[in-house]
Amino acid sequence: MLALRVAKKRLAVRDIAKPQPEDEALVRVLLSGICNTDLEIARGYAGFQGTIGHEFVGVVEESLDRSLVGQRVVGEINAGCGTCELCVAGDPRHCPRRTVLGIVGRDGAHAEYLRLPRRNLIAVPDRVADEHAVFTEPLSAACGVLERVSINSSDRVAVIGDGKLGLLCAQVVALTGAPTLLVGKHRTKLRIAERRGIETATPKQAIKRKREFDVVVEASGAAPGFALALDLLRPKGTLVLKSTFNDTTEIDAARIVVDELSIVGSRCGRFKPAIDLLSKGGVDVDSLISEEYSLARGVHAMQRAGTRGILKVLLRP
Amino acid sequence: MLALRVAKKRLAVRDIAKPQPEDEALVRVLLSGICNTDLEIARGYAGFQGTIGHEFVGVVEESLDRSLVGQRVVGEINAGCGTCELCVAGDPRHCPRRTVLGIVGRDGAHAEYLRLPRRNLIAVPDRVADEHAVFTEPLSAACGVLERVSINSSDRVAVIGDGKLGLLCAQVVALTGAPTLLVGKHRTKLRIAERRGIETATPKQAIKRKREFDVVVEASGAAPGFALALDLLRPKGTLVLKSTFNDTTEIDAARIVVDELSIVGSRCGRFKPAIDLLSKGGVDVDSLISEEYSLARGVHAMQRAGTRGILKVLLRP
Repeated sequence: MLALRVAKKRLAVRDIAKPQPEDEALVRVLLSGICNTDLEIARGYAGFQGTIGHEFVGVVEESLDRSLVGQRVVGEINAGCGTCELCVAGDPRHCPRRTVLGIVGRDGAHAEYLRLPRRNLIAVPDRVADEHAVFTEPLSAACGVLERVSINSSDRVAVIGDGKLGLLCAQVVALTGAPTLLVGKHRTKLRIAERRGIETATPKQAIKRKREFDVVVEASGAAPGFALALDLLRPKGTLVLKSTFNDTTEIDAARIVVDELSIVGSRCGRFKPAIDLLSKGGVDVDSLISEEYSLARGVHAMQRAGTRGILKVLLRP
Repeated sequence: MLALRVAKKRLAVRDIAKPQPEDEALVRVLLSGICNTDLEIARGYAGFQGTIGHEFVGVVEESLDRSLVGQRVVGEINAGCGTCELCVAGDPRHCPRRTVLGIVGRDGAHAEYLRLPRRNLIAVPDRVADEHAVFTEPLSAACGVLERVSINSSDRVAVIGDGKLGLLCAQVVALTGAPTLLVGKHRTKLRIAERRGIETATPKQAIKRKREFDVVVEASGAAPGFALALDLLRPKGTLVLKSTFNDTTEIDAARIVVDELSIVGSRCGRFKPAIDLLSKGGVDVDSLISEEYSLARGVHAMQRAGTRGILKVLLRP
C-alpha cells in the first residue's frame, strides 16, 4: 500500500506492506488531513520516523469486534497501555507508555490503511460527510480548550492565529456566547470567522486592547503570538497555549508573577463533542478546505500545506 | 529622617524630610526587612526611584482614625485607587492605578517613617515579637500560593529554591499535610526545613524524580529552577511561579502543551493568614534571620543581603 513516510527528515510516498492488525482494528482510510504538526514532524519534531498523519476518516475492514466491520469511523490518536492509572480512569491521553498515531511510535493516517485499538474508534453518523468527519481530530483539539478553562458568556476572549486551529478555536469559543476576537494577519482567513459573526483584528489593531481579555487562546505557535497574548490579558487572566512550539520561547516570567496570570497547556480533546458539533453543523469546516490531492502526491501536498495562505489540505488514498 | 534610597541605580542612605501623611497614616518604622526584590530594584528592576523597602513593622504616630494611633502595625503594600472595580471588590492588589510601597510610585519602608492608607494597616497581636511581625509580608506571599492553587494532603509538592521565600513557601505548603520536598543547594538552609520535618534534596537528587509532583512552586527566580520545575511535574500538573524574574526566561512551550501543564503566577498574599500563623508560631522565622544593622548602615546591609548563604537581613532605624 502507499504511505507518506518520514525517514531521517526525508519525506516520501512509499509502497509498503499493509499493516497486520493483530488485536487491533484495520481501517481503510477514506480521507486524511494534513496538520501543522505533520509539517513540524517532517522537520524533525518529536524525532518520529514512519508514516505521518493523524487526522482521518475511514472504514473498518478487520476487527475482533465484528460489529465494527464496515463502519465508518474516526479515531482518537492516543493509544494508551490500557492498564496504568490514567488509562483505567478512561483518559489515555497522558499515559506515559502511550503511542500516538503518526506522532509517537505508531504509523499514521496518510496511508491506504492504518491500525488502531478498537476502543479508539468512534462511529461517524451518516449525515456527516467524509470531508467534515476528517476534521474531527482538529475540532476536538479546539473543543479541548473548554476542558482546560471554563468560559462563559461574560468572559472576553481573544484567539491569536487565523490558521486552521485558530479558526476552529474561535468558532468553538464563540459558541459559548463569550464575545470573541480572532487576531490574525490574513484578510481571507479572518473573513471565514467574520461570516460566523466573530470580531477580527490584525495584531496591530489588537495590541491597542491591552489587558482587556479574561482568556486568550494562543493558536499561532509563534513567539510574537505568545508575547501578544500576555499583553492582551487582564490581571489574573488565563492564557491557553494550544500550538506546539518547535523551539524554546522567550517569555517575560515577571509579567506572569506580577499580574498573577495563568498559562494552561491544551493538546488533544475528546472526540464526542467534536462529532456532535459536526453532526449539527455547528461550525464551518467547508471554508477551511483549501486543496485535495491523491495520496500519491503526498509530498507535493505537504509543500502546499506549508504555503502561506493555504488552510487544510486533504489527501485521498 | 534617614531613608535608604535608589536614584539612577545608585543606592544611598539620605537625610530627607519626614513624610506628610495628609489623609493617610504616618508610621514610625520599628524594623524593616530586606527582600530580594529590593536587590532587584537597586539593580534597576521596575525603574523605581525613591525609598526602597516593603517589609516592616511599626507604630502609628498620626492618623485621622484616632483609634489607630499608638498601635503596632504591619501594612499591605498595594495601595489601590479605592474606586475601581477591583478595589471596590476588596482586592486592590491588581488595581491598575495602584502604588506599591517601595516598589511603584510610593516611598518605602527602609526609613524612619513611612505613610500608607489607613485601610492598609493591620494591628499586630502583642504576642508577636517585632522580629517575627516583620516577616508578615513575605509570609503572606508564601501563603498566597494557597490562594492560587488548592493543595491537599494527597498532593505531592516540590518547592524549588532554599532562599527566604522558598523556606517560607515550603513551611506553608507542608502545613496542608501534603508531602513536601524542598529543593536547594545550601546545606545550612535546607537544614532549617528539615528541622520542620520537610524532606529536602539538591537539584541533582531532585532531577531523578521526573514527573512525580502534582504541584511545583518555583521560588528560586532563576532559569534553571524554571526548567527543573517543568521536569518534576506530572502531566496536567501545576507550576506556581513565585519569584519575579528580572529577565526574560527561555521556556519549552511545547512541553506545557503536550503535558497540558498549568503555570500560575503568584505575587502578594493576604496578610490575615500570615499574622495568624505567626501568632500561633506555625512557622519558624527565627532561623531565617541572618543579620541586623542600623538603618544608617543600609548600603552595607544590602550588600550583605546579596551575599551567598545569607538569609534575611533586618534594618533598625
